[in-house]
Amino acid sequence: MSGNFRLLKEDSQTSARLGLLTTRRGVVETPVFMPVATAGSVKAVPPEVVAGLSARVILANTYHLWLRPGPEVIRRAGGLHRFMNWPRTILTDSGGFQVFSLAPLREILEEGVRFRSHLDGAELFLTPEESLAIQEALGSDIRMVLDVCIPYPCPRQETQRLTDLTHAWAERSLSWWKRQDPQGALLFGIVQGGMFEDLRRASARTLVSLSFDGYAVGGLSVGEPKELLFRMLEVSVAELPADCPRYLMGVGTPEDILEAVARGVDMFDCVLPTRNARRGTVFTSQGSFHIRNAAYKEDFRPLDPACSCYTCRHYSRAYLRHLFQAGELLVYYLLTVHNLAFYLRFLREIRKALREGRFSAFRQEFYAQKEERACGM
Amino acid sequence: MSGNFRLLKEDSQTSARLGLLTTRRGVVETPVFMPVATAGSVKAVPPEVVAGLSARVILANTYHLWLRPGPEVIRRAGGLHRFMNWPRTILTDSGGFQVFSLAPLREILEEGVRFRSHLDGAELFLTPEESLAIQEALGSDIRMVLDVCIPYPCPRQETQRLTDLTHAWAERSLSWWKRQDPQGALLFGIVQGGMFEDLRRASARTLVSLSFDGYAVGGLSVGEPKELLFRMLEVSVAELPADCPRYLMGVGTPEDILEAVARGVDMFDCVLPTRNARRGTVFTSQGSFHIRNAAYKEDFRPLDPACSCYTCRHYSRAYLRHLFQAGELLVYYLLTVHNLAFYLRFLREIRKALREGRFSAFRQEFYAQKEERACGM
Repeated sequence: MSGNFRLLKEDSQTSARLGLLTTRRGVVETPVFMPVATAGSVKAVPPEVVAGLSARVILANTYHLWLRPGPEVIRRAGGLHRFMNWPRTILTDSGGFQVFSLAPLREILEEGVRFRSHLDGAELFLTPEESLAIQEALGSDIRMVLDVCIPYPCPRQETQRLTDLTHAWAERSLSWWKRQDPQGALLFGIVQGGMFEDLRRASARTLVSLSFDGYAVGGLSVGEPKELLFRMLEVSVAELPADCPRYLMGVGTPEDILEAVARGVDMFDCVLPTRNARRGTVFTSQGSFHIRNAAYKEDFRPLDPACSCYTCRHYSRAYLRHLFQAGELLVYYLLTVHNLAFYLRFLREIRKALREGRFSAFRQEFYAQKEERACGM
Repeated sequence: MSGNFRLLKEDSQTSARLGLLTTRRGVVETPVFMPVATAGSVKAVPPEVVAGLSARVILANTYHLWLRPGPEVIRRAGGLHRFMNWPRTILTDSGGFQVFSLAPLREILEEGVRFRSHLDGAELFLTPEESLAIQEALGSDIRMVLDVCIPYPCPRQETQRLTDLTHAWAERSLSWWKRQDPQGALLFGIVQGGMFEDLRRASARTLVSLSFDGYAVGGLSVGEPKELLFRMLEVSVAELPADCPRYLMGVGTPEDILEAVARGVDMFDCVLPTRNARRGTVFTSQGSFHIRNAAYKEDFRPLDPACSCYTCRHYSRAYLRHLFQAGELLVYYLLTVHNLAFYLRFLREIRKALREGRFSAFRQEFYAQKEERACGM
């Protein structure tokens, strides 16, 4: 499995790279940020607006859609693309992360993971094969194998055992995949190995030997210090083939993304821009702030004078603060548009810097501005 | 004050009429439905979307904007049009209705009405002059005088007293208006008189003698039977000049609007399409229904097969039901777009029927279809 990713350029000073990922629904420039559409909707905004912000891929959560409305409803609707009115690429996760983080009473067995639905308490059983069968019903273009999420901290022996189980599930996933042959969809393996460098390396090598279309680095951003996250990312990525896309799941802040790009990651998803928007926190070129702050009561400037998104072209901080205070639904739309525009533009700027061979300068500038903001506060 | 309204056509069998209302921000075909933007936002949808549905006028509530964010904030923002990004006509009410329906501890005095804010309990005092001063700060294009809302039922003597007070306030409003001379804005008087035909007639005549740009019929749809509402509407409208626009405040269902048009009303506002959307109830050519109903779980048809709105072109009942069940914010946007499209199209159809001299046939067809729906249920 390969040929779906083309490496366009490698940075000379870091491991950052510019690439083209081809899915059955289009070509995606990497590094790419994928907005999150948990339950089949990028929260608060219509899909054309998300596409208009230049998003090429969105992520939907298999766990949420499995529980509600159920994969059969979506299959009968003609697949998730048609159901939710998003014609571009969709990536689905395996559902594992939500089982491990949301569902009560989970029990990890050789065969799969038993748990209760966080919605109605119904007992459910998720296996690697079932996860792929659900993703097939959804009809996503990039799919993830079920892995075991390792808590932090976790002793070495237990980490080893759970990582081995992840590998066994990865093998079973590949067998299912070869039997079912989902036309043109891509399957990604997930590297585990906890916080142990040698287990990380071994996990990456094992997955690569199985040969997936791409590789995710899993089990990070689970509470460990940032240095440890990036160290584990580095040792994982070092074992991955250059001609396959690499995906760091669920990460993160703009700074996290920049650092992960510098370490060779191509794909990102994160709820931060959308979730923060709903909570009233906006990202700007001058740092982030909360719209509720009384300082904005008569501030008629846009959220970010450097931003040209729909929200910044037409609305003032004073208006957005008013809507937020009044609980007006429109504010979630407007802040989400702005935050997504910020993230998607940030990734465009990263790609531009890579294309022009000045990624390290871009990175330095980012930190210089950050320091400036900190001093100005 | 006149010349802002041109009567284009009168129906031969009813009092229905087709007209053109000219405000300083554009020409409005009547009968017209005005979506409600209570706190400076048509709930859940951006203003361009509301305009795209062919809305020409929206209504904003003086009471809500007075309390939050305050008229001075909006004045400094450059007025409500700029604050909320709506370049077309805005009508503001006087704030009276909300004072009488939302605010606790109100006390009606000769001078004005004393009450407490429903937000923070602060004591406030609203006079006819203050209401107009607030509306001037908002910069709306059509403004309403402060009137006294009469409860239902209300004894004759009390109705007479409160209607007289409304008239005194109307006179004071006109004096303020002539002193301040708001450039090109229109001022509407409000007919009261409770549920007494002679008091209604006298109230209409009194207001007409003062000479406003338009006339609203107030104090209806306050709990009285429908026959009484329409009877009071008829006797009020009979006294109003043909060359001025007539506005029935806060009414109503499509049927209510159709009946009021037949009685000579030109302007309507109502929270029904937007509020029902947020509660999951949709209007369709086949009657209204609740999207949560289990019957729609695998119903892949649009909300209304006869509708060509954005929501009906791109989404199924099954998807909308799923979003509603999951509490996804996008559903409020999508259902609001549909319900507003329904109302605005309904008024377009009424205008078309009037233009083509077949209003009575249109009205009959409406009831025939309604009966059909009832039998089919």
